[in-house]
Amino acid sequence: MVTLEDINVAQTRISPFIHRTPIHTCNSLNELTGAKLYFKCDNFQKAGSFKIRGATNTVLQLSPEELNHGVITTSSGNHGAALALAATKQGADVQVVMPNNTSRIKIQNVERYGGKIIYCEPNHESRENTLKEMVERTGAIVVHPYNDERIVAGQGTAANELLMDLSSLDAIVSPVSGGGLLCGTLLAAKGIDPNIKVYGAEPMGADDTYRSIQEGKIVPNKRVDTIADGLRAQVGTITFPIIQEMVDEIIPVSEETIIDSMRMIWERLKIMVEPSSSIVLGGLLSKKEVFNNKKVGLILSGGNVDLDNIPW
Amino acid sequence: MVTLEDINVAQTRISPFIHRTPIHTCNSLNELTGAKLYFKCDNFQKAGSFKIRGATNTVLQLSPEELNHGVITTSSGNHGAALALAATKQGADVQVVMPNNTSRIKIQNVERYGGKIIYCEPNHESRENTLKEMVERTGAIVVHPYNDERIVAGQGTAANELLMDLSSLDAIVSPVSGGGLLCGTLLAAKGIDPNIKVYGAEPMGADDTYRSIQEGKIVPNKRVDTIADGLRAQVGTITFPIIQEMVDEIIPVSEETIIDSMRMIWERLKIMVEPSSSIVLGGLLSKKEVFNNKKVGLILSGGNVDLDNIPW
Repeated sequence: MVTLEDINVAQTRISPFIHRTPIHTCNSLNELTGAKLYFKCDNFQKAGSFKIRGATNTVLQLSPEELNHGVITTSSGNHGAALALAATKQGADVQVVMPNNTSRIKIQNVERYGGKIIYCEPNHESRENTLKEMVERTGAIVVHPYNDERIVAGQGTAANELLMDLSSLDAIVSPVSGGGLLCGTLLAAKGIDPNIKVYGAEPMGADDTYRSIQEGKIVPNKRVDTIADGLRAQVGTITFPIIQEMVDEIIPVSEETIIDSMRMIWERLKIMVEPSSSIVLGGLLSKKEVFNNKKVGLILSGGNVDLDNIPW
Repeated sequence: MVTLEDINVAQTRISPFIHRTPIHTCNSLNELTGAKLYFKCDNFQKAGSFKIRGATNTVLQLSPEELNHGVITTSSGNHGAALALAATKQGADVQVVMPNNTSRIKIQNVERYGGKIIYCEPNHESRENTLKEMVERTGAIVVHPYNDERIVAGQGTAANELLMDLSSLDAIVSPVSGGGLLCGTLLAAKGIDPNIKVYGAEPMGADDTYRSIQEGKIVPNKRVDTIADGLRAQVGTITFPIIQEMVDEIIPVSEETIIDSMRMIWERLKIMVEPSSSIVLGGLLSKKEVFNNKKVGLILSGGNVDLDNIPW
């Protein structure tokens, strides 16, 4: 299992390649919530999200021979762009398998950082077959977006930095999707101070982690219906057991609250965050009584918003 | 005339009451423009814009007796909100004269910081009469949004901080409207280093300063037709002579370029700026050849965007 030591090693390994993102505060949101909020701004991170942390930590552990074969992933979102940036920087070819109906903005994000797009049909079978075929043909190394200990250790550096910069926190809220960021946050935070409460904020419209905790085993998403396009994945076999053991609570958040929170952060903090990020404020607003008078870290995971589809 | 010494005094006077705003950089915009850009983020400033600098510098120079009478202004934009915040903090009443058709968001901004709104008819005569009447009745002190040396000295602290934080710059671009910010920027920058070029970026749809420079005297706006709602004012009798003497160039910027620049800053820097701010990047893009390979400071003056009216 990943340890705090692994996160510290990742911190040293990736620091030359990532931004040390700032922590922002906002008096008017403190007043509104009755808590003291500390926003860890990974929306300012390279390639626009925390994903560069895990991708860089993984790529830097590949051998020269593995790098020679290139890397490949099926994630067309922030992980795809981050992997493209991290791996091309090490001279490796990067392939991203994407459905042929992927939005223009996601395609551009991957291409901007030097990734090569391999189109497949927009279904699970075609995606997995295309991935398999490309791996067989090129020997490319698959870098999973979350179900990988190197990824988890890398994502843990966000909370690690937050707790290096602040003397004490009562709680941290992280988004949860596949579980890489939440796992890393749990291992970093509870490793540094076992008394820190850690919460996962999850869309009600993709609440597999919440239900998996309730049922004591991984259960699939019944439906995936959320504006938070970074939070539609299924919790992983490596990430779930850690979450199950360590998380204080998974907070389901409604679509309305996700959108309201995004607007609140844009208006009050004057920063761009995507819905998959604003959900952490949404989680806090959904359980205000729990955070009353507490010092709370909120991990703003990314800022890649589709400005042609603003939801109000 | 205001000197660098006045700006330094203002800096010391207002520092306990304002944010020391950060400087952001962006590799992708550096590549796009061929220049090294340093964004001074006064969109993160208290009340959402640089206006708190001049307002605070003025209010802190009022006598206890003057404060007792309260302050008044006719600006319903960022200056109105900033004055409300600065003056209520000193225990003074604040009145803001506004046309009765002012948008909800501007009314809320003034009220949020404790300002009292005095409605008038939406024309110049009614506004001036209402102001005069209120001053006669209450003895309130008029705090002009820009045509005042205390305001100019306060606004100069933005460029002053920029040049304290950076070892050297070749040029600075500031928005220009009534001229308070541009004047302050000129006096600070050229006072610190006479070789720094200073440019004003002005909407083509409210280009009175550009034409006034050409004609050698203040000429009024022929029309005021721009999305940059903070840049619709007329250059002032105190500010114009300083601009005329010291500015390197006023760059007229089209509406399309103002909007494109706003979107670019939202997408690339992941921060919220209003059109009256993004115009500085628009000015640079309109004169790319001038800034090639230069280190350029851009003053992002504010982040109070009307999110119900996004222009794309």
